[in-house]
This record gives sequence, structure tokens and C-alpha cells, in this order.
Amino acid sequence: MSTIADRHWLNLAARAASRSHGFVSPNPPVGCAIVSVQGQLIALGRHRRCGEAHAEVNALMIAGDAARSGTAFVTLEPCTHSGRTGPCTQALIEAGIARVVIGAADPAPHAHGGADVLRGAGIAVDLVDHQPSLDLSAPHRKRHLDGRPWVRCKWAQSLDGHVVTRTGESMWISNTTSRRLVHRERGRVDAVLTGIGTVLADDCRLTVRDVPARRTPMRVVIDRDLQTPTDSALVQTIAQAPLILVARPDAEASRRDALAAAGAHILDSPAHTDGTFDLKQVLRELWMRFDVGEVLVESGPRLMHSLMAAHLIDELAVFIAPRVLGKEDAMPGFKELAPPKLTDGNDMRLIGVHRRNGDLLLRYMC
Amino acid sequence: MSTIADRHWLNLAARAASRSHGFVSPNPPVGCAIVSVQGQLIALGRHRRCGEAHAEVNALMIAGDAARSGTAFVTLEPCTHSGRTGPCTQALIEAGIARVVIGAADPAPHAHGGADVLRGAGIAVDLVDHQPSLDLSAPHRKRHLDGRPWVRCKWAQSLDGHVVTRTGESMWISNTTSRRLVHRERGRVDAVLTGIGTVLADDCRLTVRDVPARRTPMRVVIDRDLQTPTDSALVQTIAQAPLILVARPDAEASRRDALAAAGAHILDSPAHTDGTFDLKQVLRELWMRFDVGEVLVESGPRLMHSLMAAHLIDELAVFIAPRVLGKEDAMPGFKELAPPKLTDGNDMRLIGVHRRNGDLLLRYMC
Repeated sequence: MSTIADRHWLNLAARAASRSHGFVSPNPPVGCAIVSVQGQLIALGRHRRCGEAHAEVNALMIAGDAARSGTAFVTLEPCTHSGRTGPCTQALIEAGIARVVIGAADPAPHAHGGADVLRGAGIAVDLVDHQPSLDLSAPHRKRHLDGRPWVRCKWAQSLDGHVVTRTGESMWISNTTSRRLVHRERGRVDAVLTGIGTVLADDCRLTVRDVPARRTPMRVVIDRDLQTPTDSALVQTIAQAPLILVARPDAEASRRDALAAAGAHILDSPAHTDGTFDLKQVLRELWMRFDVGEVLVESGPRLMHSLMAAHLIDELAVFIAPRVLGKEDAMPGFKELAPPKLTDGNDMRLIGVHRRNGDLLLRYMC
Repeated sequence: MSTIADRHWLNLAARAASRSHGFVSPNPPVGCAIVSVQGQLIALGRHRRCGEAHAEVNALMIAGDAARSGTAFVTLEPCTHSGRTGPCTQALIEAGIARVVIGAADPAPHAHGGADVLRGAGIAVDLVDHQPSLDLSAPHRKRHLDGRPWVRCKWAQSLDGHVVTRTGESMWISNTTSRRLVHRERGRVDAVLTGIGTVLADDCRLTVRDVPARRTPMRVVIDRDLQTPTDSALVQTIAQAPLILVARPDAEASRRDALAAAGAHILDSPAHTDGTFDLKQVLRELWMRFDVGEVLVESGPRLMHSLMAAHLIDELAVFIAPRVLGKEDAMPGFKELAPPKLTDGNDMRLIGVHRRNGDLLLRYMC
């Protein structure tokens, strides 16, 4: 049971948490509001950085004794384990919190059961499906339920659906603010994923430039036959950010040696009989072997189409340029590839509309 | 020369004027702010309804003697003629206004020269190109400079550019708020234009329903061979709103007689050798013979494509449904028709972003 007041405080906690986006990976951003019996906000905390105190602990520290008999509103089920910081359930119990309202359950094995622990200590617990809390922890839950990273696809298109750029390196993204936004996005994920076609066509770097980066994303290229040139911008910038090439095990040994010598990681992956990869397996390997919890896809329509077909896209970020294009000006879009329905007839959820001069950035969850 | 303060007052006048959209046709919406020598707002007026007092007169009426030595900020060049109301230039002179700042020049022959008349009376006049004022009077200027109505195209599409509805009658526009918005749009124009293909496929009414209408738009169908069935929803609703069918002069006489007997106007138009019409000429006839100053196009991609190719689209209103579609689910979009660039390489101007639950409405000027 949650009331309007409960949702108000959860919203507040979620807003606090969202400021941590990109700083706390592989943890999810979490926020916590402590409210007194009289309904006054006492403290607002968030998990600021991986390895530092969790949101509940930060909020309780601010609240001090005033937390006693109060309610804690937390966007994710409090953890029960003593990982990098002590268990949050214990901290809540010791602070004398009387009620805990939880925005989203935590499926991670080391955290799961926090609600039960609290109830066992005589605390009233309400576990609600609070949409902003669910959104905040969606990548985290995806990793623990599906064993793969969260996948966000970014593309830029004309109003009529022509995909007009592949990597954001091109001049197609029309204005500087949009371009900065792309780089800021990159600086918040663990890996940027693209296909060899884009590498060969654009010689892109896929590094974070001209903006403060929260993370340095690895660059991952689906490169079956190891065609990435050793003098490509990607290889030349390996010192700035790791480069992973996903290849078939029988790719030419000389190419493999040359690229490995240049510092690239080669991730062997078994190809289907038609030469394509099991992309779900590739993503799982990225999560398990390289700790990649969030992926930004900046590729041509072909790779995106394959991801769509395999239902591996979790979020879309689409720039809409203010133009209607003729066929001759554009790359093939999704339409030519006859994509499957992305959402099996269900609409996506529009989660953000950002205006950048003439460009629009639309965000959807799938 | 205009200052930041000038633009502030012009913005205010423009905002007032925008409230008259749909009420004043064939006049343009106009707003007027009167500001004292001390820089205080004295009065804000707008032209409320065709046939009633103009914006300047309304503002001066509110201001009374306080207008003396003040500045008038008006979105359109004041008129010099005694049409339905007296000339505004005269009113401004008699009120003792010392300076007039004009947001956009008026090309209409009976109004043109207002600035000169004011200057001749010793009033300081600044004619500035104020974007919101230019936008407000763009349809008016289009009519007087090109002799044709302003053409706004509306369509709904999936994110990836599939045109998913033709008339807004279909269930494709996903939510009720979007649907109401379509009807409100119709209630603000002089005519809704569509093609015979849409009529035959959707049996649409194209009337204004479930919202308060500012105008009752005529329905205009490009119907070369007069194929509109006499028992179609369009013909059955002629009592509610006029129906104009644009046909070739040699269309079958029996069809012509039946439709005319049912109350439809037949507008004969010479067809090109390939059977298509000169759409610019059709639009001109609508303006000259039927007083149609603003047209809303709700059609399939084919008619829109023809309008685009002839550079006859002035404004776009595009709904974006939150989905990515497979080919099999959609009508052909613009892409299949290989449209010309709408803007010859120039970007359109994004003038509005409206969120309607999951749908987005984007407005562009071409």
C-alpha cells in the first residue's frame, strides 16, 4: 500500500539518485529520503560513487538521532550484505527507523531479502512498484535477471526516419549541443558498441571528448574477420580507452597477432552458420569478463537491426534532425531492413524529450 | 534598431496575439502593447475576432490618456485603410503615441505603408524582423505575396518514419488527447484537404468533433474522376460543413450531377497531361473563390508528396507514436516515394514540441 505522500517522497529520493548516474556502476543509482513522524523531510541521501557509502547510510548520517521512529523512502531494496560498505538493513534497524518504503525490489542475490530482514526486526515495510525507482534500477535488474548489460541504442535520423549518421562523429548531427550530449552519454556507460562497417566507413574514435567524463568507456567492435585496420583511429587511441574486437575463433592469425600487438583485446565468439554472432552471448561475455554493465550502441542500422531482432535493446535515444530527406541523401534506415516490431506490438515508453536547438532527443524504454 | 526591452514587449504582444489564432481569419492574429515613457506596461490588446476592433485600437482604448507620449509595440504593421474598422495609423496618431515598434511589415496592399504614414505624422517608427511576429503573420503574408493559402500538413508516424494514419480517424493515433488535438486543429483552419484515396480507404468525415470549434472548415478532396461515393460519410455530413471536390472538367457528368445534387461543390481544374493537377493553382482558387486562408492537409503520403515536390508545404505537424514498426504493419511512407528534399537542404525550424502521453507532436516551419 502506498499513498500519494509515499510517492512524493519516493520521487524525491529518485531525483536525488539520478544525480549519481554514471558514477556508481556497476551499482545502480539509489536515493533515500528520511521523513519524521510529523511528515517533515529530515535527510536526503544518495549513493555517490562505487565503493562509498550507500544511500541509506548517507541519509541516516545526516539525520542522526532525528531518524528515530521515522520513515525511510528508498528507491531500491536495502542490501543485506557487507560488501564494500556494511549492510544497509542493519543501519536502518540500528537507527530506529519504524517504516521503510521501497521503490523497487532488488533481484541481486547478495541484496535480495532486505525487506524480509527489516520485517523480521519489527519494521513496517512497503514494497511498491514505483516507476522512477524501477527505471533507475532497470539496468541493474536486467544484469541480474538476464545476465547481460543494459543496452541503449542511439541514432540520429531525419524526421521521416532516414538514419543520417552512424557514430555521431559525422557532421550530420547538426549542432554542437547535440554533439556534446553524445559525448556526455558515452562518458556514462561502460562500453560503446559498434560494427565493423561503421569503423571502416567513418574511422571513428568513439572516445569521450570535450566534456567531463564520468567513466572511460571501452570500445567494442563486432568485427568477425578482424578487419579493423591497425592504423585506424580506434587502434591509435587504445591508450585512451580499451578496445575489444569480437571475432570468430578462426579469424586470420596474422590479423589477430597484429591487433593484439597493438593492444586490442580479441574476444572470440562462436558464429552462427550464417556467419552472424549470438549477440546475447556476446553481451553476456562483456558483462561477465569485462564488467560491462551498460552499453551504448552507436552503429549503422544493420547491427541495430540484429539487436532489435534478438530483443536486446532496452532503451532508445534518438536524435531527430529538422529535415525531411530524399532517398538519395541517406543511408538505408530500418525500413529497408524490414525490422521486426521492436516491442511486439507494445508501445515503447517515452521517458524524455530534450530540445537541442533544432534537434530533438527522444528517449524511450522498450 | 531594436533593444532587448523592445523584444520583450514585442514578445508580450505576440503572446497576446496567439490567443486569437483561428478566430480572426482571414485577418492575421495581431497583438499590441502600449508602454509608458517610464517603461511601464499600460495596456495589452489583441484583435479578437474578424470584424471587430484591431489590436492597436483595443490597446489604446484600455490605455486612454495614459498612452500619450508612450510607445506602441505591435506585431504587424498598422493598417492605413478604413475597412471593417478605422485605420489604426490614425488611432495611434490621435492618441499621441511617440514611437511605434513593428514586429513584421504587412505586404497587403490595403495595409502596406502604415509605417510611412506614422513617420509622416512625426512618430518614430522601428520596423524590426521579430521572429514570433513574423510567424504569427506568415500565413497572411503568404496569401498576399503568393496568392495562395497557408498549407499545414499533419501526419502521424512511427518513430522510424512509417506513416501510420491518414486522417486521424483511425485508431492509429494512440491516445484521446492526441485525437482531441487533431480536432482542435481542424477547428482553426478554413479547409481540410485530402485525396480520394484516403476517402475511399477511411470513409472519413473530416469534421470537427468533441471540441469547441473556432471555425467550421470546408472539406476539400482532390478527386479527379469524382469517385467520392454519394453515400460516403463526407457527403452525408454536408449539412455540417461544405464539401468541395476538385475534379477534371471532363469527369463523368452523371457523377457530377449526383454529387452536386447531394450538395457538393465541384471545382473544375485543368489536369496536367499525366492526369495530376497543378496544386498551386488549386490552392489559389481555394483562396480566391472560397476565401480559404489556411489549409490543413490530412492525407496519405501521395498527396503530401505532390505538395512537397511543388514546394507548397509551409508547416508540418507530425505526431510521433512510440513504436518502431515492421514494414508489413505500415502504409508506404515518404521514403518509398523518394520525395524531394522538402527544404532544398535547409533545415526546417522546430517551432513546437508537445507531449501527449506517449505521443509527441512536433511542429516545424518549412
